[in-house]
Amino acid sequence: MAGGEVPVSVRWIGGADGHLELLDQTRLPGAIEWRECRDVASVIEAIRSLRVRGAPAIGIAGAYGVVVAAGEALRAAQRPVEARVRLLASAEEIAAARPTAVNLRWAVERVLATLPVAPADIATLRATALREAVAIHEEDRRLCAAIGRHGADILPAGDVLTHCNTGALATGGDGTALAVITTAWADGRRFGVWADETRPLFQGARLTAWELVERGIPVTVLVDSAAGHLLATGRIGSCIVGADRIAANGDTANKIGTYALAVLAAAHGVPFFVAAPSSTFDLTIADGSAIPIEERAAAEVTSPWGVTVAPAGAAAFNPAFDVTPARLVRGIVTERGVIAPVTAAEVGRVLGRG
Amino acid sequence: MAGGEVPVSVRWIGGADGHLELLDQTRLPGAIEWRECRDVASVIEAIRSLRVRGAPAIGIAGAYGVVVAAGEALRAAQRPVEARVRLLASAEEIAAARPTAVNLRWAVERVLATLPVAPADIATLRATALREAVAIHEEDRRLCAAIGRHGADILPAGDVLTHCNTGALATGGDGTALAVITTAWADGRRFGVWADETRPLFQGARLTAWELVERGIPVTVLVDSAAGHLLATGRIGSCIVGADRIAANGDTANKIGTYALAVLAAAHGVPFFVAAPSSTFDLTIADGSAIPIEERAAAEVTSPWGVTVAPAGAAAFNPAFDVTPARLVRGIVTERGVIAPVTAAEVGRVLGRG
Repeated sequence: MAGGEVPVSVRWIGGADGHLELLDQTRLPGAIEWRECRDVASVIEAIRSLRVRGAPAIGIAGAYGVVVAAGEALRAAQRPVEARVRLLASAEEIAAARPTAVNLRWAVERVLATLPVAPADIATLRATALREAVAIHEEDRRLCAAIGRHGADILPAGDVLTHCNTGALATGGDGTALAVITTAWADGRRFGVWADETRPLFQGARLTAWELVERGIPVTVLVDSAAGHLLATGRIGSCIVGADRIAANGDTANKIGTYALAVLAAAHGVPFFVAAPSSTFDLTIADGSAIPIEERAAAEVTSPWGVTVAPAGAAAFNPAFDVTPARLVRGIVTERGVIAPVTAAEVGRVLGRG
Repeated sequence: MAGGEVPVSVRWIGGADGHLELLDQTRLPGAIEWRECRDVASVIEAIRSLRVRGAPAIGIAGAYGVVVAAGEALRAAQRPVEARVRLLASAEEIAAARPTAVNLRWAVERVLATLPVAPADIATLRATALREAVAIHEEDRRLCAAIGRHGADILPAGDVLTHCNTGALATGGDGTALAVITTAWADGRRFGVWADETRPLFQGARLTAWELVERGIPVTVLVDSAAGHLLATGRIGSCIVGADRIAANGDTANKIGTYALAVLAAAHGVPFFVAAPSSTFDLTIADGSAIPIEERAAAEVTSPWGVTVAPAGAAAFNPAFDVTPARLVRGIVTERGVIAPVTAAEVGRVLGRG
């Protein structure tokens, strides 16, 4: 990839009988490898093993996954009804591949909702599904641009600290929190960007730093536990992160470590922002206590990159996400504007604009 | 090493013409390898590259390092005065091998102070130095036992969360913060021990978890950034950590991430303790702002275990320590008792007991 280019994480190759390709994010930044997904199993494997990650990108992959599922149903089943049952079962499997990000189920269900109720032939269903998946992907590009614009307009002066990856790799466009940073940079503002490495899977070091280097924006990586010390030095003007699910009151589930960073930012009076499209909100739940938190395999902690760092006999605790209460968030940047203060009333008001 | 045994990190082999051996902590828990140090260069290399680490253990290694330096001076120099100059220069190099832990310079200078002012023959100096180094080592064993006892007596109910390694590997005895945990366990109390993995060098996962597994005490490892989420679950009764240098007012320099943990503990009303021998105090400095913070190589962050996780072109910020202000520390456990509340007056009162 040449310097200055914007990375792409998800793409559909060909027409309705085509296939999904994912930039394998587990291999970055060492290797740039595209992974072909021609069946449902490979879509689910790619989502579960984080070859594609980031709530919006997972949603887009899931939407295209329904098209893949329709093709598989078409090939495997004899009768239209049987094919349809198979498609719905596969779509449910895809929607459940990861539990915390709400975008995945949202996107899968949105594609399913466009399919005609009558048992139309499956090839028609597949073409309809692809149109909707492409629409979701295109929309996400526009959402990212709008989020970047709204966020850049309110980004405080000073260096910016971010956590995990919320850029082009995590979305269908320029990103969420990272789009705010790159839009402000494109506006001509100059500041340092600091990226938490984001253990256990190093998305900050591997993906955020890579995207920024590709765009020619200077970035400094730090271990997650150094963020408190960095904030204490006084050079950070704001923190901005993405979200995997946001409750009706603004409580935000995001990558493990986000909550700790929000507490530290508050302790230093540094404004802490969340950036996410409105599809990340789950208005069916009142607050963050109802958000399911995925616990992932111990080996992500005890054997990073296959190197065993903990002795046999030690247990591991590996929650993939945590919940940051709304009171610690200065504002939530959405494509419809900035929710601030972060209250249930303001969430309802800004989201109602759509 | 058999189950239930207490690990040893530093040992002297032979008499005054013997040598220093260090359990190579960069190889744990995968391999148990002893590193022989027969010259000053290898002592300094072992300290700088963290083959021996932990403020008290570094101090003990430094003390024995003076004996090694005396032997080297004896072999290299023709005249007593020349040998003595060489010894002092080597001792200064050892004392400056790492800047933050005060115990290193303290121990080196304590050994030097026992050497007669008159230009006695260097073999006599060497024997004198070994006597003092052994005394420092023996003392540290007793200090660890006293710290463990005082700390266990005040350790709150509930699970304990610790950071980095503060056990037998970090000291000449059972440890500081970890001695509090193992003493409480030996008292028959039962609780969960949670160990922050402690990036960048994984001392919590590699060393603390290993020591606890060796002793048969259950331990759970977590990424550093998950500590906030863990504290939010309400199961942690206390946090306890070690120290590399403590100012006269109780401000404490310790492994990077300690400050973040202290802020998070305070946010959840969980008492946060520091455990350290009185030699860790530097009463010449009024508060933590004067403690020098070592910055280490970027590769520790960007290439853990030789695996490159950050792209070429990304910078790295790698402070080895941070400073936790006294107001966040519920008590400092020393061999002379517990300093609580943590104020300059109380520091003076408890240390004055010596």
